[in-house]
Amino acid sequence: MSKKTDQKIPLDINKTASYLDISEKRLEKLIERRILTANWGKYRQLLRFDKKVSHIEEGSVLNQQSNELELVRGFPKIRRALLLESAIIKNFETADSVAIEEKMNGYNVRAAEINGEVLAFTRGGLVCPYTTEKVRELINLDFFRDHPDLVLCAEMVGPDNPYVPKDIYNIDSLQFFVFDIRKKNTGKPYSIDEKRKLADEYGLAQVKFFGEYPVRDASQKIMKIIEELGKDKREGVVVKDPEMVLQPMKYTTSQSNCADLEHAFKFYNDTGRDYLFSRIVREGFQSVEWNENDEELQKRCIQLGQSILIPMVETINKVGCGERITDDVQIRVKSLHTAGKFKNYLQRLGVEAVFEEPVKEDDQYLVRIKKLNKSTNDKTESIWKGDYW
Amino acid sequence: MSKKTDQKIPLDINKTASYLDISEKRLEKLIERRILTANWGKYRQLLRFDKKVSHIEEGSVLNQQSNELELVRGFPKIRRALLLESAIIKNFETADSVAIEEKMNGYNVRAAEINGEVLAFTRGGLVCPYTTEKVRELINLDFFRDHPDLVLCAEMVGPDNPYVPKDIYNIDSLQFFVFDIRKKNTGKPYSIDEKRKLADEYGLAQVKFFGEYPVRDASQKIMKIIEELGKDKREGVVVKDPEMVLQPMKYTTSQSNCADLEHAFKFYNDTGRDYLFSRIVREGFQSVEWNENDEELQKRCIQLGQSILIPMVETINKVGCGERITDDVQIRVKSLHTAGKFKNYLQRLGVEAVFEEPVKEDDQYLVRIKKLNKSTNDKTESIWKGDYW
Repeated sequence: MSKKTDQKIPLDINKTASYLDISEKRLEKLIERRILTANWGKYRQLLRFDKKVSHIEEGSVLNQQSNELELVRGFPKIRRALLLESAIIKNFETADSVAIEEKMNGYNVRAAEINGEVLAFTRGGLVCPYTTEKVRELINLDFFRDHPDLVLCAEMVGPDNPYVPKDIYNIDSLQFFVFDIRKKNTGKPYSIDEKRKLADEYGLAQVKFFGEYPVRDASQKIMKIIEELGKDKREGVVVKDPEMVLQPMKYTTSQSNCADLEHAFKFYNDTGRDYLFSRIVREGFQSVEWNENDEELQKRCIQLGQSILIPMVETINKVGCGERITDDVQIRVKSLHTAGKFKNYLQRLGVEAVFEEPVKEDDQYLVRIKKLNKSTNDKTESIWKGDYW
Repeated sequence: MSKKTDQKIPLDINKTASYLDISEKRLEKLIERRILTANWGKYRQLLRFDKKVSHIEEGSVLNQQSNELELVRGFPKIRRALLLESAIIKNFETADSVAIEEKMNGYNVRAAEINGEVLAFTRGGLVCPYTTEKVRELINLDFFRDHPDLVLCAEMVGPDNPYVPKDIYNIDSLQFFVFDIRKKNTGKPYSIDEKRKLADEYGLAQVKFFGEYPVRDASQKIMKIIEELGKDKREGVVVKDPEMVLQPMKYTTSQSNCADLEHAFKFYNDTGRDYLFSRIVREGFQSVEWNENDEELQKRCIQLGQSILIPMVETINKVGCGERITDDVQIRVKSLHTAGKFKNYLQRLGVEAVFEEPVKEDDQYLVRIKKLNKSTNDKTESIWKGDYW
């Protein structure tokens, strides 16, 4: 993600090493190897961890501008169940019950107050200018005035989404759905009860809560929930220890899985091999756990085959006709200045994108963005010209 | 493929470097890094190239036991067309016509006379004891008496095939189908005419010849051939310059492609991600080139989805019932000594395999072999126990 720059990072090595509980030597290495690296421009004082470093998660952000150093911990990767029943029993056996929340399909964001302003960090710890503007519009900022020591972990969901646009949620533009509240520095999460209560208090939107179930009954309940979510192409659930001591676990619908593949195979040569493989494996295990008969399995095979081949065939045909294929997303901004900042931001990330003329709408602008998937376009074109793979 | 040993390779560095046309220093590095490495046991004097080294193909075998050094060149990788028509025109435009031969589905073997005995080398340049016995039984050895300077490049095809068993060819046990005749040392191939005539002279089996066609007509002809081959689940064709100056090109049937996937996904976690991806891409391009309508594309999607999911679901279910899944192959040998040598050979390759009790049949023995695909078994079992991926 990070672009190489020769910026020197101004840092109190001694103080920082002691705060992070690592040696000075190690800290210097991290900077040298750009594992600890600066955000851009105005946010250069916010350093982000490009990889996990001992106890510090990838995407963690170190704020060294304030008097006291502070750390917004990276959002921990949630493990995925392939066989729901066995995984719940194995991983939650020491809890009485599990809480089920919806896993929404958008992008992961952490919002926190940093040096007096509310910022939104992407998974990797970058300050996203678009998300930051949106968060400031969407949430009751009193929350941070009252709780400057807390981090809101949320999914940004909706069609005006430059990363994962989805129109399945009945959201007009974009919404910020809280799923975790965590402490700065330690990353310690609130329990489910505390979190939902606190978020309610400030009127924050939250991911849907499906209830709390005894560990032994949970997988049956979840399968029913998953079936319903699937009908709306929604993504899935996160299974959580109500106390948030045990690690949460995710489980997703086949429909979301296939929608992922369908989108990915439009850009087949930009798609990671692992991305494909892991989704196929999920289908296999779900079919087995759901004890599908021949007809149901057949339906799943068709779904899978179609999700992969049809978008790829379309792409090959389009490129054969001289078209360039693009990943079309859009943002809605109050200020064109934000669109400009976001354009720079994508450029710095190395994303090739064309921003179309903004369309004025009442008090905001709609900006359509075409991201170019170079590798798929180039490869397809070269094969049309008779090249080998 | 190669196991580490501390065998010293006895080698005249000066003479060998000069013969291979590389520097002595480079040669020493190749040995040190085990890129040039010895065959086992009796064949230690036959060194094989584990990687391509400048002009010398991977799998090349250097014989340094004879007075004169000699080299059996590795069989060159044949490039694959994704869009047949463009690829033929681009790659064969300087030829008047192209020759079409069948690409059979077995394993690639090179047979040559080395120090007075006929040996069979696998793609990687190993002397396979089973293939060597078979080659000696199957071919008219006068060929090598008369032409000790030639290498027969062939596909070993049939059910008694410990690598790629296929019963689609109406072959009882195993057959050796010549597709190239090449010179030792230079690797220079005979023209198609010369090759077919010489092989006929010695009564050697050859891959099917579908004729020679003008470059501009070839892709239409090939599509018809491919359609017919597909009906029998046969693999495909190799398109060759009749003079064998331009590099040949391969093109395969969807049925063979899907059969590959079906076999591979029984052992889904042992299957390479690239293996999967490349086969999917082939389906996409074939569908486009064949200008398929919705119904035909739908059929292809179903075929693809089934080839992937059904064997995986079967494997997950079997392992869930406590079975270990294995890749079952068989060999037929005149002498149990050969079976023993082949067992050692697989062991050295790191293949875990169980050899069943030989079954006596007239003048030979049938030996069934169960190859264990450890990664798929272990991973599936652990997921049944509730582990994450």
